[in-house]
Amino acid sequence: MLRFASRKSEYLPTHFYNIKADLPDLPKPPLNPRTKEALNPSDLEAIFSRGFIQQEIASEREVPIPDEVLEAYSIFRPTPLIYAAGLRKALDTPARIFYKYEGVGPVGSHKTNTAIMQAYLAAREGITTLTTETGAGQWGSALAYAGSKLGIQTKIFMVRSSYRQKPGRRILMEMFGGTVRESPSDTTDAGRRFFAQDPNHPGSLGIAISEAVELAVKSPGMKYSLGSVLDAVLMHQTVIGLEAEKQMAELGAEPDTIVGCVGGGSNFAGISFPFVRRNLRDGKAIRFITVEPESCPTLTRGELRYDCGDSVGMAPLLYMYTLGMDFVPPPIHAGGLRYHGMAPLVSHLVNKGIVEPKACSQEKVFDAARLFLKTEAILPAPESSHAIAAVVDEALAAKKEGKERVILFNLSGHGFLDISAFNGNGSK
Amino acid sequence: MLRFASRKSEYLPTHFYNIKADLPDLPKPPLNPRTKEALNPSDLEAIFSRGFIQQEIASEREVPIPDEVLEAYSIFRPTPLIYAAGLRKALDTPARIFYKYEGVGPVGSHKTNTAIMQAYLAAREGITTLTTETGAGQWGSALAYAGSKLGIQTKIFMVRSSYRQKPGRRILMEMFGGTVRESPSDTTDAGRRFFAQDPNHPGSLGIAISEAVELAVKSPGMKYSLGSVLDAVLMHQTVIGLEAEKQMAELGAEPDTIVGCVGGGSNFAGISFPFVRRNLRDGKAIRFITVEPESCPTLTRGELRYDCGDSVGMAPLLYMYTLGMDFVPPPIHAGGLRYHGMAPLVSHLVNKGIVEPKACSQEKVFDAARLFLKTEAILPAPESSHAIAAVVDEALAAKKEGKERVILFNLSGHGFLDISAFNGNGSK
Repeated sequence: MLRFASRKSEYLPTHFYNIKADLPDLPKPPLNPRTKEALNPSDLEAIFSRGFIQQEIASEREVPIPDEVLEAYSIFRPTPLIYAAGLRKALDTPARIFYKYEGVGPVGSHKTNTAIMQAYLAAREGITTLTTETGAGQWGSALAYAGSKLGIQTKIFMVRSSYRQKPGRRILMEMFGGTVRESPSDTTDAGRRFFAQDPNHPGSLGIAISEAVELAVKSPGMKYSLGSVLDAVLMHQTVIGLEAEKQMAELGAEPDTIVGCVGGGSNFAGISFPFVRRNLRDGKAIRFITVEPESCPTLTRGELRYDCGDSVGMAPLLYMYTLGMDFVPPPIHAGGLRYHGMAPLVSHLVNKGIVEPKACSQEKVFDAARLFLKTEAILPAPESSHAIAAVVDEALAAKKEGKERVILFNLSGHGFLDISAFNGNGSK
Repeated sequence: MLRFASRKSEYLPTHFYNIKADLPDLPKPPLNPRTKEALNPSDLEAIFSRGFIQQEIASEREVPIPDEVLEAYSIFRPTPLIYAAGLRKALDTPARIFYKYEGVGPVGSHKTNTAIMQAYLAAREGITTLTTETGAGQWGSALAYAGSKLGIQTKIFMVRSSYRQKPGRRILMEMFGGTVRESPSDTTDAGRRFFAQDPNHPGSLGIAISEAVELAVKSPGMKYSLGSVLDAVLMHQTVIGLEAEKQMAELGAEPDTIVGCVGGGSNFAGISFPFVRRNLRDGKAIRFITVEPESCPTLTRGELRYDCGDSVGMAPLLYMYTLGMDFVPPPIHAGGLRYHGMAPLVSHLVNKGIVEPKACSQEKVFDAARLFLKTEAILPAPESSHAIAAVVDEALAAKKEGKERVILFNLSGHGFLDISAFNGNGSK
């Protein structure tokens, strides 16, 4: 069997897949955080570009990918689909395992897929600058890259503790011309509240979001950009699954199980939604598994209800599984995927029983990462390693049952810029 | 045109290419460092595995790649050959530019190609442990990976200043089960000489080599392993060029210019030697360009003579271009490629006028890296960025001349684990 599905340009889709067109019923709509009424799209215009809002409320099944975006994608897409020969051998399993490797993108993760589209939509309507927040810098570096491609400036508020401890992604954002500020900063009202108390305040994603949204709302020509959770962001990520469909066909394999890690939900949505369509429309019975950290168990232990999308109540209320807007994972947790909520569309599919949620311990996740590194020769991101941990479980279950299974998962990124997370987890 | 040449397994060669079989005359032989007489292969048996020594003196044109090594290669090989559409567009050049991307390997560089072969040769004759030195950790992590695949333990002496400043590759070596010691250590005579003076001695590659060689020579079941310079190491790297030949053919392109950066010479040899054969045997006139840092100008300003391969005089005397065994590049130099000498085979081809040496300034190299990152979406290693700088020159020269050229270069690795080198070089 081939190990790599070739990267033919015709595998790049021309349209995003909008799962909402195929869902028998839709998730409950977002609410305006002030009025608690169903959100009016125009409520969002102070924050987001109009083009992005249109994609967020789009109802057609196929949303065209503009030529300029396709050209930007073609630099690193189609990403390879790889047959996990080494992992399979190590597990001695009858299951065939495939993964889509999004780490070949410019910042080493899938985040660029939506960043490029969002920068394109902003540039088209004359927006000069996008603001955003970033923790360790994965999303920030994706947006900075996209900005450098599409002629959009980027202003990124980076959580101070990460800014100081993990300079790698900050350097990468700057190489792309992004402006990176430690958050809390003294440049916004929201930031000053904390900065005034303590200029060395470690910061939080919640504060950084507030700073980025405030700057966008107050500045002409600026809008805010978000890297996960929203319907449009998930839709942009479907390029992953659409490519994978064609590449799996080239390799002569049809998946019966699809696995992805979840933080906000976008990489899982990206690989799985085009295949969920097969269950919805064609009566297939593919299993879909989300994997989250036990220390941030949104889908496995959270509650399905309206909650704030951010930690300060400026963003719309979303109907989703949530641990509560004040949730903070314990400090021992190193593996990313720290968001308190979950994309409403992923929440909906879990609630409907189409997607099975699963949680894995950090130890199990790092064991899986080490095994993958040795057998597949790719250092997985700590986040993506959650998916690997579940794939190992599934592959071993298949072995027990003596069943030939076909498992596909999304290797959403590499771990080279996060290697410090593995420190002390190495020499086993 | 396709952007990616597909990664079909039939592109993996079954034999290494030994350029010595096609050279009209050979480089002067290595000398025994004590007697200054031509080296007897058995002189090396205290240091290297017998299998490695046989490969070092091999004279046949094609040296078979064992099945076990091919299997290990197949995890990440063939590596992709990529058409540099973005770079070409940015330079507005009629030259078509292609690169072989070795960064997809497990430690992000080409070093694994020889590490796997050396670990295989050692395992075959019952050697339990390989020792080596490493600076920032590129070679050490490659050998640790290879050891983990082939059941060989690895003991790696890592220059203390790197050990403390750049933990990333140390963590990677440990994830592969390698034992990493700060050098100078108190575990060898050579190390103690410096450690006793100062337990925080920053170390040097020369001291680390001495420690690794001493440990191997004194310990039953242990041998030493080297990551560049020697004929056999260069030969192992020809898998790069052999794959590239077939992939270029798939893309319908024949290179007239081939470029690689040089430190010890192995990645340049890897991409170029199979094409040098075309000049030697088939009368082609392909240009070959090596690129080194202006601050370590071995081929452009060094002298061709016998010099020590290491910095303490334990290794054989090699006939090569050298800056002198005591040469240390100025502290401002950040881009790797610090070796004082050069592979005898590369030195020989430069001396014969077959290969053109070139040096680039650090500023120019970092400019090229930034351009490549933005246009090709891959963060190049600082080392590999030297090759990019020369490719940019060639592409612009082609534009001036209005000439359609076909340029191939080796992108020997990615820069994610070296991103700190770019710090402060970002926001231009």
